[in-house]
Amino acid sequence: MSLNAIFNPKSIAVIGASTKEKTVGNDVAKNLTSQGFEGQVYFVNPKADELYGQKVYHSIKDLPADIDLAVFAIPATFIPDEIEKLAAKNCQAIIIISAGFKEIGNLQLEQQVAEICQKHHITLIGPNCLGAINPYINMNASFATLMPKTGNVSFISQSGALVSALLDYAQDRDLGFAKFVSIGNKAGAKELDLIRYFFKDESTKVIAAYSEDLINAPQFIKTIKDYNLGPNPKPIVILKSGRTEEGSSAIASHTGSLSSGDAAYEALFAQAGVIRANTVAQMFDILEVFSKNELTPVKTTAIITNAGGPGVLTTDAVIKHNLKLAQFDPKATEQLKSLLRPAASTKNPVDVLGDAKAFEYQAALEAVASDSHTDSVIVLLTPQSMTELEETAQAIVNIRQNFIKPLIVSFMGAKTVDPAVKILRNANIATVSYPESAAAALGAFAQFSSWKSSQKDDQVFTFNDIDKSKVAQIFAQAKAQGQTSFPEAQALEILRAYNFPLLKSAQANSVEEAISIAQDFNCNLAMKIVSPDILHKSDVGGVMLNVTIDSIAQDYQKMMATVSTNKPDAKLEGVLLMEMAPSGIELILGANKDPNLGSTIMFGLGGIYVEVLKDVSFGLTPISKKDANKMITSVKSYKILEGVRGQEPVDIKSIQEALGRLSVLLTDFPEIIELDINPLLAFSGGVRVLDGRIVIK
Amino acid sequence: MSLNAIFNPKSIAVIGASTKEKTVGNDVAKNLTSQGFEGQVYFVNPKADELYGQKVYHSIKDLPADIDLAVFAIPATFIPDEIEKLAAKNCQAIIIISAGFKEIGNLQLEQQVAEICQKHHITLIGPNCLGAINPYINMNASFATLMPKTGNVSFISQSGALVSALLDYAQDRDLGFAKFVSIGNKAGAKELDLIRYFFKDESTKVIAAYSEDLINAPQFIKTIKDYNLGPNPKPIVILKSGRTEEGSSAIASHTGSLSSGDAAYEALFAQAGVIRANTVAQMFDILEVFSKNELTPVKTTAIITNAGGPGVLTTDAVIKHNLKLAQFDPKATEQLKSLLRPAASTKNPVDVLGDAKAFEYQAALEAVASDSHTDSVIVLLTPQSMTELEETAQAIVNIRQNFIKPLIVSFMGAKTVDPAVKILRNANIATVSYPESAAAALGAFAQFSSWKSSQKDDQVFTFNDIDKSKVAQIFAQAKAQGQTSFPEAQALEILRAYNFPLLKSAQANSVEEAISIAQDFNCNLAMKIVSPDILHKSDVGGVMLNVTIDSIAQDYQKMMATVSTNKPDAKLEGVLLMEMAPSGIELILGANKDPNLGSTIMFGLGGIYVEVLKDVSFGLTPISKKDANKMITSVKSYKILEGVRGQEPVDIKSIQEALGRLSVLLTDFPEIIELDINPLLAFSGGVRVLDGRIVIK
Repeated sequence: MSLNAIFNPKSIAVIGASTKEKTVGNDVAKNLTSQGFEGQVYFVNPKADELYGQKVYHSIKDLPADIDLAVFAIPATFIPDEIEKLAAKNCQAIIIISAGFKEIGNLQLEQQVAEICQKHHITLIGPNCLGAINPYINMNASFATLMPKTGNVSFISQSGALVSALLDYAQDRDLGFAKFVSIGNKAGAKELDLIRYFFKDESTKVIAAYSEDLINAPQFIKTIKDYNLGPNPKPIVILKSGRTEEGSSAIASHTGSLSSGDAAYEALFAQAGVIRANTVAQMFDILEVFSKNELTPVKTTAIITNAGGPGVLTTDAVIKHNLKLAQFDPKATEQLKSLLRPAASTKNPVDVLGDAKAFEYQAALEAVASDSHTDSVIVLLTPQSMTELEETAQAIVNIRQNFIKPLIVSFMGAKTVDPAVKILRNANIATVSYPESAAAALGAFAQFSSWKSSQKDDQVFTFNDIDKSKVAQIFAQAKAQGQTSFPEAQALEILRAYNFPLLKSAQANSVEEAISIAQDFNCNLAMKIVSPDILHKSDVGGVMLNVTIDSIAQDYQKMMATVSTNKPDAKLEGVLLMEMAPSGIELILGANKDPNLGSTIMFGLGGIYVEVLKDVSFGLTPISKKDANKMITSVKSYKILEGVRGQEPVDIKSIQEALGRLSVLLTDFPEIIELDINPLLAFSGGVRVLDGRIVIK
Repeated sequence: MSLNAIFNPKSIAVIGASTKEKTVGNDVAKNLTSQGFEGQVYFVNPKADELYGQKVYHSIKDLPADIDLAVFAIPATFIPDEIEKLAAKNCQAIIIISAGFKEIGNLQLEQQVAEICQKHHITLIGPNCLGAINPYINMNASFATLMPKTGNVSFISQSGALVSALLDYAQDRDLGFAKFVSIGNKAGAKELDLIRYFFKDESTKVIAAYSEDLINAPQFIKTIKDYNLGPNPKPIVILKSGRTEEGSSAIASHTGSLSSGDAAYEALFAQAGVIRANTVAQMFDILEVFSKNELTPVKTTAIITNAGGPGVLTTDAVIKHNLKLAQFDPKATEQLKSLLRPAASTKNPVDVLGDAKAFEYQAALEAVASDSHTDSVIVLLTPQSMTELEETAQAIVNIRQNFIKPLIVSFMGAKTVDPAVKILRNANIATVSYPESAAAALGAFAQFSSWKSSQKDDQVFTFNDIDKSKVAQIFAQAKAQGQTSFPEAQALEILRAYNFPLLKSAQANSVEEAISIAQDFNCNLAMKIVSPDILHKSDVGGVMLNVTIDSIAQDYQKMMATVSTNKPDAKLEGVLLMEMAPSGIELILGANKDPNLGSTIMFGLGGIYVEVLKDVSFGLTPISKKDANKMITSVKSYKILEGVRGQEPVDIKSIQEALGRLSVLLTDFPEIIELDINPLLAFSGGVRVLDGRIVIK
């Protein structure tokens, strides 16, 4: 996919360049000729002759040269024919701004366009989008008026209309971009294609997206992991809407595609190490911090403030966003004590006092920046009449050059602090308006390094004790007979083929065999008579529980004698010996196939924990060993598995392995759309599948 | 308390008016003479003669007339003497800006100042504060430079340094104030005194506060309830810091007072109907909505947008903040369909399409504003090149006059939308920059009306079956002996006096008495021998369980016979008959005395629910019947009490009553600092206290 032709074209044709102002075709033509783009721009419109001092060609065929990129602003139905004409001009990429495709139910036209592009190896952005912008070459191939300043954030927006607002917010916050693209209906390039491109794009340091739906979780996770666990990671920040059912159905009504459940997206982002922004404002705060700081690991932060109240508010926010307040080392504490006034607080948050001068801020920042327990710094300032606003900003800029720990500054207020904030921004220092935003953004920043370190020594699940062909055969046979549902016994057979720990069972036809099986199983057993002539086994004394190795010889003979007496005509073949289910904690493993993302695995404790407290966790296949572990430890009731009230802890490793086997089974057989292992009994010695249910499509 | 002299003085003396710029004494003098205050202002300073064209008096005694208000900006230690001099000038109120009191450990000086003020009936604000502002009379008796515009929000800030930032943010957001006051160490007027004053203040419509600690929850709740359940309620919005332990300890280090646990504050605010803001930014959003809308009940909202993405983001936020999307009535739907283009979405959120003109916004707003299912409206706009920004703003202003439902507008972006936002602001329409903020603020707005309706028909707990004097006697006796702890039996005696349902028990000394007690108790009984000579009752056959009415005569005689045989020498007095504990669900009721707020009650299900899942709720005494009910229903495990997996529901009314008795006991005896009822057994027929523990101070 040649996304380079989208962002770095030498020549662009605007198909539908219009002379009528405030139309898309006019806006694009204006943006491409008035904002400094130095490549060749051609206008095409059968009904116009001149626009913005340039000749307008009446047809694509008339264009005097080959073109790299074409931007469409003509009615949807005309587009397929025009693409064919572009192919003849060696066009490498197109952006279809025009609407009138899938979003109004016209899926066929959209597929037709996509196929034509594929046939000619033309990269497609859209349809129903806003266009693409590359500020580094002053290219605004969109109908958004604003050209953003250059920077290191590359942005992908599923919503076109949102872009104009985002560019306006960004300008106000002085945030710069490497690339900006709106992808609309995503018939061609999708989020992951652009993420791949931005990974390789030298001017991109941070990748951001507004997204309503994503597809193919396994590919998404693998691509991002492969790159971001490498030497040059780029954080990805996504604002994903549709958190609620109501939100998802609003997406459905305006894009025509139903979004997956939010829990699946939460799992997806957690596994891929994608930072999720909760609001537009928070997304900007997070981008600000990633854009203007080096990617160093952050667990602790130091707060410097000239006002106690904001210090406390920020402390609360720091803790809420999973960071710790740094406990300063003695050297830093000494330094703070010697440099600040006695009434100042030299603990974290450091209070330099309301009337602090620039040199006091400087001293405090120097001390905490070199503190060995401090990973990052938040500087807060309230503008008092004695505050040296611009001098303080300048002092921060000076010290900033001496350390690389992430720094976020909140000069609280608006007009009063603006000139000082400008000084900070010009020096590429991350600033936010509100103090709690600094903590929230820093929390997101820290999430990225903590994800990276959590991936260390992680492993994929591989099993060499799996009988894949047996399951393939079961499914093939079922499909041939139109069977899609596999209740208990059949489900257990499938799970046994993947070597899930089931309750052991075997038939013994003699006392010797019974002894040998009991020795082999090495646990308490249930013994049931096997006879074609006996239906109600327990009525004739054909069921015994808690049979031990020591008692089995005697019990076997006793059962044979009793049953013979009670049912003299019956033919007794032997006994079925089954492992007695140990006492333990009931778990539920579930799986669901999401049409967009793939298979989702659910984990939780059974009974009240799942049904009443909804205390469950999710993972997207394939899960890694650490993913599985995180699923287990992240439910609130996890402590129960560790053993409470004198109970022995259950075998977490075995649960982890069961999740792994489930993940492999789901990956091997994408036709599984539902699967429940309920209960999975967990105890100190392992786990046992007691019941299961599988549905394929 | 004459707070009127603080906010509406005719004459003000600045004690410590300084000629040195960028000092507090100079700032206050400048603010009072340069911002349009029309009252008399006097400067006092022994070392100066003239300041800002006015004579400086060398001593308070020299002042030529009586004064209403004095503002102190002199070293703390000089202040007590000066207050005495002010009293001679009939001074009614003072603001002590000077620091150097409790916050640096100088509690004694602070108490001395407070006592002198009390003696002379002088109202005190501070010390260690920023001052007070009344924009309606252009009075800025503070060292903050900015005079806010007039409006209907009155603000109380515990933090002085925060004020300058708040005023700056407010100016940027065009939010106006009725009064602004910083109360510092709160040696005189506290939050509740000011709230009382603002309740009566005609220019105040909304009361807001930044607070680090509050005191006396019963008084706080009662005062606010009494007023806000009346005819002219005023919403109270509080930004309370110290949510986390780290935050609380940061408060302690800068104010010298330890904040109560956050759960207690959450309960306090819920009971008093106070809206809690989470961040400074959110507080402003909430104030914006309360300030510019009438207080009507809100459960649903309609969203109008020209962009799908922001519509979805806002839908998510609406649901997150406990609102519902309005389901339009057929008339509104018809109206939308007839007025908007076919591609527009006429469901909620209403999408008027990216290129919507002002008249389309107007049509959509008219339709949803008159929809019978819509309680409030959020209007979103992204600035497209064809968007009629100012015309759309004007259209909204025009329609706004026709309906009183709350309206919040988010014109997304910054510079591009600014002129349009100005039109909205000038027409007193609530605007926020980010769409999700609109939903969050509207959620807070709705909270107030939902609190009001939740208070309808609420009742206080009163019991006429309580033996208060008995408990008073027990505590008096204990205190005399230095006893503070009351374990099981003693605690149960206290609880019995308050008629908590304990397991019934009585002694029977004859078979006739035993039968009569069994008939009276009407439940299964445990029977235990009563004899001064028998220690281990069960060893001699002196314990029988599950004795019924039918069997009791026989069982009584059998026990007597058996024990006589086993222990012939023992003197047998009779038997103790005790109600057998029914099977049920174990609950925990706990109580804790918070040094600032008062007694806190905790409720939760026993065992894992409290210990592992921390699934508990809190209330502050005295709780009402609805408060108790909310405590019970707000734990996540509440559904278990309603009956799960075929269990009968437990008797919620009895749990509610037990909480009520506990609340009354704690109110009657403030010396109780800890109390546990654990377990309280709940079953379908009621509750029983099985064990308890009480600690007094």
